[in-house]
Amino acid sequence: MSKPKIAVVGAGKVGSALALLLNRQGYPVAGVASRSIHSARRVAEELHVPATVKPEEVTVSGDVVFITTPDRVIADVAEEITERGGFRSGQVIFHTSGAHSADEVGVVRSVGALAASLHPLQSFADIKMAMENLPGSYFALEGDSGTLPLAEQIVQDLGGKHFTIAAADKPLYHAAACVASNFLVSLMHFATELYSHFGLSQSESFEALYPLIRGTIKNISQVGPPKALTGPIARGDGPTLEGHLKVLRDVGEQECDLYCRLGLYTIKVALEKGSINAGEAKKLDEIFREGIL
Amino acid sequence: MSKPKIAVVGAGKVGSALALLLNRQGYPVAGVASRSIHSARRVAEELHVPATVKPEEVTVSGDVVFITTPDRVIADVAEEITERGGFRSGQVIFHTSGAHSADEVGVVRSVGALAASLHPLQSFADIKMAMENLPGSYFALEGDSGTLPLAEQIVQDLGGKHFTIAAADKPLYHAAACVASNFLVSLMHFATELYSHFGLSQSESFEALYPLIRGTIKNISQVGPPKALTGPIARGDGPTLEGHLKVLRDVGEQECDLYCRLGLYTIKVALEKGSINAGEAKKLDEIFREGIL
Repeated sequence: MSKPKIAVVGAGKVGSALALLLNRQGYPVAGVASRSIHSARRVAEELHVPATVKPEEVTVSGDVVFITTPDRVIADVAEEITERGGFRSGQVIFHTSGAHSADEVGVVRSVGALAASLHPLQSFADIKMAMENLPGSYFALEGDSGTLPLAEQIVQDLGGKHFTIAAADKPLYHAAACVASNFLVSLMHFATELYSHFGLSQSESFEALYPLIRGTIKNISQVGPPKALTGPIARGDGPTLEGHLKVLRDVGEQECDLYCRLGLYTIKVALEKGSINAGEAKKLDEIFREGIL
Repeated sequence: MSKPKIAVVGAGKVGSALALLLNRQGYPVAGVASRSIHSARRVAEELHVPATVKPEEVTVSGDVVFITTPDRVIADVAEEITERGGFRSGQVIFHTSGAHSADEVGVVRSVGALAASLHPLQSFADIKMAMENLPGSYFALEGDSGTLPLAEQIVQDLGGKHFTIAAADKPLYHAAACVASNFLVSLMHFATELYSHFGLSQSESFEALYPLIRGTIKNISQVGPPKALTGPIARGDGPTLEGHLKVLRDVGEQECDLYCRLGLYTIKVALEKGSINAGEAKKLDEIFREGIL
């Protein structure tokens, strides 16, 4: 079966990676539109397809359109293209926002097109990393029910796995993805910053911490988050934590506060693991409450 | 060159893994001591060496002694063994605590033994995982200077890498390790808990998040923490974050608070990345301050 023709609106990391990867899988590309002709050309030239700043010029001849612009302009872009006659009956319009539901492009239904969202649960530092990391990723699918078989096929062709999600759950789904990815970056920033206090550079610190991080992730994947918890909170070791807070206060108020907030949450994890009892939890709670702003 | 004979006091995850891994590398094992004879036997029988609850019985014939007990009893155990004549001149006594300096076993110097700490920067869910994860890990070395060549040799034989650290820096070093590992577990607990609100189990959630986590760690290792930051904070996307907080308030106060505290820290990371300016940072700061307890 021949693959549908795709058009991409928004030539950032996700849009570019989708166009390049799907084209490799046999999807013809109608063209690439972007606010910046430079960005559109970067991808379009590689694919030998038209680049434009007028999305309706390329969307009109696509069977499937991906709107991969920044979240805040998705609705406006969809409306503008609709007004200019860039959408038509029978098309499927996907946006790739994690936080928004298909309704963000709901305007396309007015011309008989279908609306859906297809969000790769992945973080992209740049286009190259996006192309490397998309295969093997999960995708959250949501939108008009007729779009599901197509969405599943696209995910499969990208080497990904999918799950479906209700429109109302997208903000929480996206918040959790930010916790798992963006705050993971912050946590590693925090840890490597602490190491800089005794003379290791950020990259040296991360190199030393990398096997620990990998080991921890491996533990979580094998036994789940509560059982993978080790260290002083899991052991109910108050004196060690008091020692940490003593030195963290000298590092900075925000650092000490954040450590304690994370510590308070971690007490809950240790209780769930069953490695501390309620009395030990209470003692640790008192230690961390002393350290918060 | 023949390897020194080792004795292990404390047959938990670290002590057991050290005994088993070093024995494979040709280190004779004098014996294994533990408060619980059951734990001591579990390892000792595999190595065909004596198991005991009286550590002095096995330490006396070791060239190198590892005290791998819980942190809070290391000093007492070292003192007791010393009093009972279990240490002698020329021995090297290591403890494996991350938070304490070699002085925790400083009492051994009174009989002419050397004191040092050797801490694997790794997290061990169980003995099997400890044996899998120790090779490739970094070890922090600290203590009497004469112990360094031996410590380096041991780390090398374990397949690890080492760095040295000042005694005074151990609490901060250990706090940072807890941030990178224990709080990583908490962060994943947090993310998977959020997913349970729309019907995914903890293991299903982690399976879906795993490629994202791996991708994020890969990004960090390639471009460093600030540049690896993606998502709404890196983009200065206030409305998306407001959408998150709206649903997080329904999840729970602690969850919303922790999200905002991590968000506040992440603003700093985004500023360092240079993807938001001071004005955008101020707006995000206001959003998160509205959500904290």
